[in-house]
Amino acid sequence: MIAVSRLKSEDRIVEKIRALATTSPGLTIGPGDDAAVVARAAGLLAATTDMLVEGVDFLPGEDPERLGRRAVAVNLSDLAAMGAEPEFFLLSIAVPPERGEEVPLGIVRGAIARAAAHGATLAGGDLSAAPLLVVSIAFWGRPAGDPVTRSGASPGDLVYLTGHPGDAAAGLRLAEAAPPDVPGLAAADRQRLLAAFRDPEPRVAFGAWLGRERLATAMIDVSDGLGVDAGRLARASGVCLRLERERLPISPALAAFAAAAGVDPIELAVGGGDDYELLFAVREADAPRLGEKADALGVPIRAIGRVSSGSGAVLSDARGERDIASLGHDHFETAR
Amino acid sequence: MIAVSRLKSEDRIVEKIRALATTSPGLTIGPGDDAAVVARAAGLLAATTDMLVEGVDFLPGEDPERLGRRAVAVNLSDLAAMGAEPEFFLLSIAVPPERGEEVPLGIVRGAIARAAAHGATLAGGDLSAAPLLVVSIAFWGRPAGDPVTRSGASPGDLVYLTGHPGDAAAGLRLAEAAPPDVPGLAAADRQRLLAAFRDPEPRVAFGAWLGRERLATAMIDVSDGLGVDAGRLARASGVCLRLERERLPISPALAAFAAAAGVDPIELAVGGGDDYELLFAVREADAPRLGEKADALGVPIRAIGRVSSGSGAVLSDARGERDIASLGHDHFETAR
Repeated sequence: MIAVSRLKSEDRIVEKIRALATTSPGLTIGPGDDAAVVARAAGLLAATTDMLVEGVDFLPGEDPERLGRRAVAVNLSDLAAMGAEPEFFLLSIAVPPERGEEVPLGIVRGAIARAAAHGATLAGGDLSAAPLLVVSIAFWGRPAGDPVTRSGASPGDLVYLTGHPGDAAAGLRLAEAAPPDVPGLAAADRQRLLAAFRDPEPRVAFGAWLGRERLATAMIDVSDGLGVDAGRLARASGVCLRLERERLPISPALAAFAAAAGVDPIELAVGGGDDYELLFAVREADAPRLGEKADALGVPIRAIGRVSSGSGAVLSDARGERDIASLGHDHFETAR
Repeated sequence: MIAVSRLKSEDRIVEKIRALATTSPGLTIGPGDDAAVVARAAGLLAATTDMLVEGVDFLPGEDPERLGRRAVAVNLSDLAAMGAEPEFFLLSIAVPPERGEEVPLGIVRGAIARAAAHGATLAGGDLSAAPLLVVSIAFWGRPAGDPVTRSGASPGDLVYLTGHPGDAAAGLRLAEAAPPDVPGLAAADRQRLLAAFRDPEPRVAFGAWLGRERLATAMIDVSDGLGVDAGRLARASGVCLRLERERLPISPALAAFAAAAGVDPIELAVGGGDDYELLFAVREADAPRLGEKADALGVPIRAIGRVSSGSGAVLSDARGERDIASLGHDHFETAR
């Protein structure tokens, strides 16, 4: 009897993933073996991981390519917050088999394209079945200077934020609606907010520059909400972050959404999640160096407050201060 | 108003995870920041990832610590199959919040303990909510010699296997039964088979030794079944693997299970998954070197066949040969 080996379904998909994968100078062994192998010079390695679960971190029916792009973006944002330049990533996908191979292949395409835009390469991964779609990425890279932790902020430092907090939270509300719209909201604003949620732009080059120039004394990426992430940076640094309500960079699109939907844009900006912007502290003397680079990279930045002694994160306006560190997304609100 | 920052539930669990984490000479920044940072000498880095999904890769209700141990073991097995020594890992857990913090904490404890036994350390991770439990690990390490791929086997090489294939598949059948037993099976055999499924022993030291000594011309870990993984090694190497039925190392426990359950132990050994044993090819002249090291490490090994020209993987006995490369576990049997 002659053996003719039927290529298994899982292997067929893996072969197609291998065909999508790109090469890179350091990549000695790419996807398809038991482990990936890369060559590295001596030095520090920064590594992060994020798992996205259908129905929790993204909406059912999300476009696979956009999901792959987003899964990479949230990991790139973590590396950016460390002041690190991305190098390679591992991509795990668990998917209901009946959805067909186009779902994992679309995710891989989106992930590879998103990473390539920042000079990073797929090294390997894992494919398995599940009752619902799960995408997990582990991404590593190299700190451009000293790693920027959450713990170096000192009283007197200025607090900066990239981008426009709350846009993604408004985009999520739009995406959850059917149709994804709010009466009275202009199409351009709707598209901008939806894109902020579905396809966030990680601040990779700016984060690495802050690290390389040793300008950020502490940094975190705002993924669970400005309030709670400000609280985390404050706690790690042993300081208080005092943000000023009137300085929060509310985008025109968010303002339009808030007016049309009858909500407070500040609540979305402080309590909404999924922004993937960088919140960082800078010595006041270094602040003048930021604007030119941010402009050159097309990254909006804004000084939104100051570090003081104490603890927690507060938002202040003419009427006083309020705690914002317990706002925002908490996966485990019900866990005790 | 004085701000008192309430520590969020998710952060509370992360704090407890940080308290469990151990230090390591290379670990510059461990769990709790946006990314982990480790110091590394120049050279190759081997990296792998595996995701375990409740109901697919492990049974609902699995003990959290054992699940953490197993999640680490399956990744260590991939590194072993590359001839690499493990260094650090990232651990992502998605869990239904209502199950309480003891589930993720148990997983972390088990994972840390399992990795520590092989000299590896938790570097970071991600915690999120999900409708069902998912554990994803990314593990990296250093090839002890040249990385051992699946693709170097040549006609004439001997084919070796560690351990006893099919024990884990029998253990899964036992675990799925309620109570986990088969009439007529001795308690010691039952325990041995259940342990093979629930808490496999990755062949870390032996795999690294094979790599360091450049003894394995090709290697793969048998996780989806001996047949299908033999087929994968054969395809990557462009050869045929001819395994001999009478040489398959059927454990006494598997033989007892098969007799009691009325199944063919060879079918479980060839078609069952979750073995996490090493299948590797060795030049015939090098074969005499294997036994002493395997004995010293307490790793059972057996020559089970030979590499020939051709393609596929076959099992031969007195009656002839049959294809075994399409047996075994396929997550995507229904996907087309």
